[in-house]
Amino acid sequence: MPTAQQVQAIMQRYVERVDAGDIDGILQLYAENATVEDPVGQAPLQGIDQIAEFYRQGLGRMKVSATLTGPVRASHSGCGAMPFRVDMQWQGQDCSLHVIDVMTFDEQGLISSMKAYWSEVNVVPR
Amino acid sequence: MPTAQQVQAIMQRYVERVDAGDIDGILQLYAENATVEDPVGQAPLQGIDQIAEFYRQGLGRMKVSATLTGPVRASHSGCGAMPFRVDMQWQGQDCSLHVIDVMTFDEQGLISSMKAYWSEVNVVPR
Repeated sequence: MPTAQQVQAIMQRYVERVDAGDIDGILQLYAENATVEDPVGQAPLQGIDQIAEFYRQGLGRMKVSATLTGPVRASHSGCGAMPFRVDMQWQGQDCSLHVIDVMTFDEQGLISSMKAYWSEVNVVPR
Repeated sequence: MPTAQQVQAIMQRYVERVDAGDIDGILQLYAENATVEDPVGQAPLQGIDQIAEFYRQGLGRMKVSATLTGPVRASHSGCGAMPFRVDMQWQGQDCSLHVIDVMTFDEQGLISSMKAYWSEVNVVPR
């Protein structure tokens, strides 16, 4: 199980790869049997194939930038939460989406679950 | 179940009451059978009596201030996540603790679960 410092480093790396649009790099951070619930309230995606499709559909189709807006909060139980901002075009306008991702990790330090907290109340014009 | 806007308002109210040291006001936001895991990784507290004791032991013993450091991320499934900062004295020094709270709500809009993500890596001198 990753230490709190390792959780911080991995989650920061995740945001950097989202920012770079590096889909292969993102997928390398996930365990084969991981789950993704983005946004929370949707039926979770199950396994790396569904997760790969999700990132290709999202990040693969538009340029976004992603920036941490505060420190990664990391527990001693192999999980963490972080606030970040995604700058993007939404319905033809420059917008920022404010998200909090909560992640759990397996023994290899791979993401076993990701939950993204946001809804359209968190989309603001830029 | 509260709307996303109601989740934002309730969670903001929670931080205001922590900031004010208003323990009775905080407890009024919780359901009778709520659970609290603070920090995540600890055995969850079960029910309002244990939760009341937790806040009286923590907030009742020292003056803290609490400030939202970004928007409350609110879902359409009755839950939310928010980043905030608690300014306090820790081991004789002025410190800030960076926390993310994740909350779920019941049909009455009361907190049914709270999980606080942080560890000592999130304590910084001020």
